[in-house]
Amino acid sequence: MSNHVETILIIGIGMIGASIGLAAKQKGLKVYGYDLCESNIKVALNEKIIHEGLESLDQISQEPISNDIDLIIISVPPKQTLDVLNNLYDIWNTEITITETCSVKNHIQLDNVSNIILSHPIAGSDKSGPSAADANLFFNKKNIICNPFKAEKNHVEKVENFWKDALQMRTELMSVSEHDLIFAMTSHLPHLIAFALIDSIRLANTKVGDNAGGGLKEFIRLSGSNPEMWRDIFTINRVDIIKALAGMQVSINNLLELITETKEIPEMLSHQDMLKDELEEIKTFKEDKF
Amino acid sequence: MSNHVETILIIGIGMIGASIGLAAKQKGLKVYGYDLCESNIKVALNEKIIHEGLESLDQISQEPISNDIDLIIISVPPKQTLDVLNNLYDIWNTEITITETCSVKNHIQLDNVSNIILSHPIAGSDKSGPSAADANLFFNKKNIICNPFKAEKNHVEKVENFWKDALQMRTELMSVSEHDLIFAMTSHLPHLIAFALIDSIRLANTKVGDNAGGGLKEFIRLSGSNPEMWRDIFTINRVDIIKALAGMQVSINNLLELITETKEIPEMLSHQDMLKDELEEIKTFKEDKF
Repeated sequence: MSNHVETILIIGIGMIGASIGLAAKQKGLKVYGYDLCESNIKVALNEKIIHEGLESLDQISQEPISNDIDLIIISVPPKQTLDVLNNLYDIWNTEITITETCSVKNHIQLDNVSNIILSHPIAGSDKSGPSAADANLFFNKKNIICNPFKAEKNHVEKVENFWKDALQMRTELMSVSEHDLIFAMTSHLPHLIAFALIDSIRLANTKVGDNAGGGLKEFIRLSGSNPEMWRDIFTINRVDIIKALAGMQVSINNLLELITETKEIPEMLSHQDMLKDELEEIKTFKEDKF
Repeated sequence: MSNHVETILIIGIGMIGASIGLAAKQKGLKVYGYDLCESNIKVALNEKIIHEGLESLDQISQEPISNDIDLIIISVPPKQTLDVLNNLYDIWNTEITITETCSVKNHIQLDNVSNIILSHPIAGSDKSGPSAADANLFFNKKNIICNPFKAEKNHVEKVENFWKDALQMRTELMSVSEHDLIFAMTSHLPHLIAFALIDSIRLANTKVGDNAGGGLKEFIRLSGSNPEMWRDIFTINRVDIIKALAGMQVSINNLLELITETKEIPEMLSHQDMLKDELEEIKTFKEDKF
């Protein structure tokens, strides 16, 4: 079995799937596409994002398609991803490699399968649908690879090669538990916070009108992402998100204690200087860290 | 007294003051500048942001400067703003109009003065210093005008005309209490949350490395703003910020109850559908509202 990818099938031609298809097609790969929603397939064909659309997933295990496809990439919301992986049971443990693109992984639990690898290409947008495809969305970005089912080396290499060669991404191997905790802090919690902030303004009696200056615009952008995907992420990764939120509540309380002067202040320092030091420290950490 | 502005003095030539100076100078106004930090004056002269630098604030009340200046704009952090306004006591109740640019206003309490108007040009950047001056920073943006000292109509019109004509901004009159509560929700709380989120990652044992995808990048940008300015804003507006935070905690708890299924769910709906509906509602509100 070669670990080189010439032909892919994308299941789920939303913004992410279509961006992967477009980049792969521009690199000379053959791209099949499938979507429950027929109009997404039509758009993808019209906009030359895919070469060919499948009418049903049954075609995958039938010739000539079954001989043609090297790699299947599933790009649907997290809960549907598990359903699709189960529906592909007929091609488990074949030479076709299967991967997916969810931002959360711990719900993907399968037994006795050796050709499924998990991927998380780290890039996103608040846009959706195949018309929002962007061939450069993943260029030079990072892709986390998880191999919880101990897939064979050839399958792992095939997935890594695809992301590196066709999408021009960097890859990093990580365990599912490490992945889900890190992204709870760096992605899921920030989105939860953005939804909560916009919700609190929605519920407030104060009319904010068009006074959305300062920081709010970033939160507005974040809270515009696909609600179905975020519902799945929040429910699947709730344990790690609550851990991350607990850490953040400690930091909020530390800032509040400084702001309201309830913390015991060393004699030599005013609380305002302490708050400035704290903010400088956060800024310095950030500049070193990321 | 004319309500037309031909000559301004900017006190505090940081990123905001320098951006105002540059825009006004490009519109043909004469621009004086003063800064406690001499190197800021030098940079502003070298980069043609101001025509002339003052050596001391005493020059303002002496001829020929005193006859020349129509409007003084103070652009320093909130606590210093109050100090500078008090230091300008000699020109209180003269024909020179005085305004400032703070994001928080309730600490500016003065008696028996008729030529001080408060302004809040709504735009910002995580950059600082006169080299970061941007003549277009305020173009087409909004400027909140507060008149807590019941300044004379001519002074109010002079300030409004300046922002409209020289900076091409829209203006809106608002009370100080309304201003501080709205911006607690739309600007101060989002920044506090960004500082707290970055702080919680700093304090966590988990190494996040370069996995700063998704929402975190926006928070990193927000938490890069001037720590001294934010220390002042957080301490001065703590009451309204705590009100806004309390509202947001309610929204966080609502989301957590949906995520963790602790809320009593109507029979016809799964909690996952409820969460999706809630997220859709937030998204719809946002699209209508801003």
